[in-house]
Amino acid sequence: MTPPGIADIRAAAARIGTRLNRTPLLASPGLDAMAGRPVLVKAESLQLTGSFKARGGWSAVSKLAEGGVRGVMAFSSGNHAQGVAYAAREHGLPATILMPADAPAAKIAGTRALGAEVVTYDRATESREEIGARLAEERGYVLVRPYDEPLVIAGQGTAGLELAAQAAERGLREAEVLVPCGGGGLASGMALALAAEAPGMRVRTVEPEDFDDVARSLAAGEKRRNARLSGSICDAIVTPEPGDITFPLLAAHAGPGLVVTEEEVLRAMGAAFRHLRLVVEPGGAVALAAALFHGAELAGETVIAVASGGNVDPAMFARAMELAPEA
Amino acid sequence: MTPPGIADIRAAAARIGTRLNRTPLLASPGLDAMAGRPVLVKAESLQLTGSFKARGGWSAVSKLAEGGVRGVMAFSSGNHAQGVAYAAREHGLPATILMPADAPAAKIAGTRALGAEVVTYDRATESREEIGARLAEERGYVLVRPYDEPLVIAGQGTAGLELAAQAAERGLREAEVLVPCGGGGLASGMALALAAEAPGMRVRTVEPEDFDDVARSLAAGEKRRNARLSGSICDAIVTPEPGDITFPLLAAHAGPGLVVTEEEVLRAMGAAFRHLRLVVEPGGAVALAAALFHGAELAGETVIAVASGGNVDPAMFARAMELAPEA
Repeated sequence: MTPPGIADIRAAAARIGTRLNRTPLLASPGLDAMAGRPVLVKAESLQLTGSFKARGGWSAVSKLAEGGVRGVMAFSSGNHAQGVAYAAREHGLPATILMPADAPAAKIAGTRALGAEVVTYDRATESREEIGARLAEERGYVLVRPYDEPLVIAGQGTAGLELAAQAAERGLREAEVLVPCGGGGLASGMALALAAEAPGMRVRTVEPEDFDDVARSLAAGEKRRNARLSGSICDAIVTPEPGDITFPLLAAHAGPGLVVTEEEVLRAMGAAFRHLRLVVEPGGAVALAAALFHGAELAGETVIAVASGGNVDPAMFARAMELAPEA
Repeated sequence: MTPPGIADIRAAAARIGTRLNRTPLLASPGLDAMAGRPVLVKAESLQLTGSFKARGGWSAVSKLAEGGVRGVMAFSSGNHAQGVAYAAREHGLPATILMPADAPAAKIAGTRALGAEVVTYDRATESREEIGARLAEERGYVLVRPYDEPLVIAGQGTAGLELAAQAAERGLREAEVLVPCGGGGLASGMALALAAEAPGMRVRTVEPEDFDDVARSLAAGEKRRNARLSGSICDAIVTPEPGDITFPLLAAHAGPGLVVTEEEVLRAMGAAFRHLRLVVEPGGAVALAAALFHGAELAGETVIAVASGGNVDPAMFARAMELAPEA
């Protein structure tokens, strides 16, 4: 499949128009003090459906709707599900979403609330690819892959277009841009957009410990797999390996990758609660964790962290609040 | 004192420039479903220091700094304190803040973290006005009043300028704009700005039950006092009565006032956690509570609620999360 380019990202931005939120780039004196440098946060957790995934969902579904399609399908642990479900509903299309039975309750309920049919499967014993292919075939729906899909990557890249404009408004030309990374759709899309619009900015992927396939792949120059696929609090960004389309883009435009611990992720969520007044989910907080706790691995002065999602259950958020700084 | 006008608000916006956050106007399908109409939220909780008070603080302190001043003082249960402390620090001025000893720990700690000297007093037995006047006299500092001060009202009004522009971008010309109201600085400033820039929008004040001095004053056509001054979870917006400057502005440009229960406030905070991924404090959530639970008292289609602050202790936020909708 042809990888997407900056023209595809601009076209996705045009299809999205003002139908999604333009997410803010936030400063915070409290975060600056914690990190010992200026930290800006691109709050994709404030995107409709609670994550950047609405961008890719809208980009793909709007294009499929133009071409005429009976319905759409997706498999996802939650955020891509909600992005596709929302876009489908707004385009008047039915959506069927395949979700692991152990996905966070908030994500399953959120997907159903957006009008999608949710089919659950057992992550350990069933193949989502097989179930998805069968259901798509039966119903004549088109599968929207979560990251290894040019239309989806182009949609996620619109966050990079926004960021380039917002940084320019602040007179900021150079920064490392830390991006939570699962399959690499957001990181590769933003890297493409920034390479074109803000060449002084460089994307660095961030992953949780033990699920750092992208960091290892970037270091090795070829794809590496994760040893396991569950057991992380960062459920949203756990994938088996980088995508066939996203990995070459990341290798060309991003890196080196950063890796953070779960303890650092929870502390970053607590800091976001206290200093940004944002609800960020574990997978969405890995980049902020790197900005706050891995400063020695970062180049330059100002760092930009993308907070990629905010769909978290209260119990997990309560754990993070216990680790919030007092001020 | 001469009340502020639109020219003062524009001048405040020019002094602020890009030194504060431009807060987003957020949509959410989940809130729309709860309210049964489109609800947009102007997220002032994302302002630097966690509330709109940074606007008024910056407006006043920047003007005082132009004129030459030795230092600034404020009395505040927390958000105004942080707004003035931050503005003073950024202008290289010392700040002394008088805070009630029972203010939320996060607000006292947040104020100290911004470099201000915090002096606490007993809300029941001591007069903050007397202590403040004595300290200001001793040190030669200028007192920045929290709401009955034209420079502060003009600063808060910059949120109205932003909202007018953001609504226009969405093609929205008419709406009720629900604003949390204590002394009336934010509500009167926004009402002035919207009267000039978006005359199809009307501000309505929102207060918690038992602390509804503004609603009763607007209904009576003259100032009414609250029977008590403590015992509300909405500490940020509890004041004895409307201000001498703010009340005539509100009477001319805003109302009728709305009143919500504490239960509704906590449920609104839970909805903001789930559907907006925002941390909103009780006093900051009263307008969203009115949008979600008092729809029958609202005119028109789309409603805009201002979420005015997000400085809340984890225990209070945990109470709200228990009331969060599942989806």
